[in-house]
Amino acid sequence: MAVNLKQLAELLGLSQTTVSRALNGYPEVNAETRRRVLDAVRTTGYRPNRAAQRLATGKAYSIGLVMPIASGIDSDIHFGEFLAGLAEEALKHDFHFVLNPSAPDDEEATFRRLAASGNVDAVFLAYMRQNDPRIPILKSLSIPFVVHGRSMGGPRDYPFLDVDNTRAFYDAAKLLLQLGHRRIALINGPEHLAFSVRRKKGLMRALEEWGLRLDEALVHHSEMTDEYGYRSMQSFLERPGPPTALLCASTVLALGAVRAINQAGLVIGRDISVIAHDDVLPMLRPENFSVPLTTTRSSLRAAGARIATRLIAGILNLGDYPQQELWRAELIVRASTGSAPER
Amino acid sequence: MAVNLKQLAELLGLSQTTVSRALNGYPEVNAETRRRVLDAVRTTGYRPNRAAQRLATGKAYSIGLVMPIASGIDSDIHFGEFLAGLAEEALKHDFHFVLNPSAPDDEEATFRRLAASGNVDAVFLAYMRQNDPRIPILKSLSIPFVVHGRSMGGPRDYPFLDVDNTRAFYDAAKLLLQLGHRRIALINGPEHLAFSVRRKKGLMRALEEWGLRLDEALVHHSEMTDEYGYRSMQSFLERPGPPTALLCASTVLALGAVRAINQAGLVIGRDISVIAHDDVLPMLRPENFSVPLTTTRSSLRAAGARIATRLIAGILNLGDYPQQELWRAELIVRASTGSAPER
Repeated sequence: MAVNLKQLAELLGLSQTTVSRALNGYPEVNAETRRRVLDAVRTTGYRPNRAAQRLATGKAYSIGLVMPIASGIDSDIHFGEFLAGLAEEALKHDFHFVLNPSAPDDEEATFRRLAASGNVDAVFLAYMRQNDPRIPILKSLSIPFVVHGRSMGGPRDYPFLDVDNTRAFYDAAKLLLQLGHRRIALINGPEHLAFSVRRKKGLMRALEEWGLRLDEALVHHSEMTDEYGYRSMQSFLERPGPPTALLCASTVLALGAVRAINQAGLVIGRDISVIAHDDVLPMLRPENFSVPLTTTRSSLRAAGARIATRLIAGILNLGDYPQQELWRAELIVRASTGSAPER
Repeated sequence: MAVNLKQLAELLGLSQTTVSRALNGYPEVNAETRRRVLDAVRTTGYRPNRAAQRLATGKAYSIGLVMPIASGIDSDIHFGEFLAGLAEEALKHDFHFVLNPSAPDDEEATFRRLAASGNVDAVFLAYMRQNDPRIPILKSLSIPFVVHGRSMGGPRDYPFLDVDNTRAFYDAAKLLLQLGHRRIALINGPEHLAFSVRRKKGLMRALEEWGLRLDEALVHHSEMTDEYGYRSMQSFLERPGPPTALLCASTVLALGAVRAINQAGLVIGRDISVIAHDDVLPMLRPENFSVPLTTTRSSLRAAGARIATRLIAGILNLGDYPQQELWRAELIVRASTGSAPER
């Protein structure tokens, strides 16, 4: 016994267009009207008929994602957190996702098929590599997209949202240098990903300002697991000139690194300083480490929500958003950083 | 210049039906023929035309998922791991997923819309609650489904894959009792979820066999985060009769619990024993804890792959699989368990 749009509009004494605009989040509908419409939706159980809307508008009300998968590829906890942000925003506009698994070497073809399927109105692209071949492909397809991250090399003429990773690790390294540290190690993300390259660049830039050079033996690239963090730190500590400070590309890596430091009998914040990048994963908070971690912080979930907002605004013509956004990470000092130990 | 099915079949000297069956994984095609077909697919770049197949067969080649989301709901790392398993198997059959975000109180309606949309051939259901209202709804919709987990109460006449959680925590508790422990604490998952109820039941059953009763003050329910694990363990240790052993519903909870134990100056495996459930999350392995953790182990990724196999086999008529599966978790003993301390 649900009402339709016409009946809902009559009930409210509003035009169908106004009700429809209120429901689709158009900014020109004032807050009071929107509240009345939403109240009426709740009491009447009105639900827009997506199938009818799809026929009428030619829109799928859907965003496409490609998920690289192979038996050797681990699931990525960061993906789930980002997806939660996307989903939170998609829910507000009754959008869904089409998730296409793809072999890593077949991603370009998967994007082409997704765009051609008519099942999605826009696609989303992440895990940017250097000179990423997927960007020219997406530009050639007639479908809107937003990139999470940025490629390196090639023209930067596409819509993106990225964290300023160079700046984040420049800021972090600068703090360590100001505290007197000179041997700074880096446990980074996978080497082929653009954010890893940029974070390393940030460290190098800060070292250069101090007249120092990066010691490549103090840089490891790896997947974001506890185990790699542990192994990397252990091998750094076994070297003749061990580092007095560590930059970590994620709190998950920091977990393992902290364990290696503890096992070596060193005190974090006194014998060795640690700064990690914090994506604000709910399962692992830097403030809850035994020695609370100094971090560069930028919420992955907020990034997901923002990208969904921009994609959906583009599809439904809900207003203009900046096409390129570079977020600055916050540097939050906690107990894991201190003056360099005297040697 | 890609070949079509007819050309591919001619090239191989096989019928189109045989080639098609080989590609769709039918068991009656022998291994050698399958290998020849797959080699030819690689060299010719043949790709089945999904849009045409969809028209011809009326299938969407898609599995529907509902993702509960709200601004207060944390992303769940376990979901990502399960999805990786689903995706690994879906990729083999060129299936994709339709992921519908839903407010938690609107899940039933979301399933109805998903089934009615024609966008999916089957749906998947998880996070089972007691007397779960979604099961009768799914049974009433004319769409195949598999449940990950089992509800409690009501008839058990639906397809499911579950881990025997009662058995897993019964086995774990029994080992602790054999080691002389009598005060066993439990940091469990959310109270409304069926797996939490069953794990608690397993503990109670083992205690009863020893003529003991569960002390409700030693049971906490919470989300699966490091922080909750830490807080729960800390509060247990502050009690007048602290536990000498702990069961943890996940390795993530164990992370926080271990930290609280270390901070209290207790030695794991000597002063207090710990057993955690291990979903085999790649980012956090129990064998890499400072004191390697004894666990009840069952791979979430393997469960995801198995559910995808069963759903896809049902959709494409690829053969029969059991409709109800109860997997037994392995109890793997490592250094975190030892004899109860003398008091």
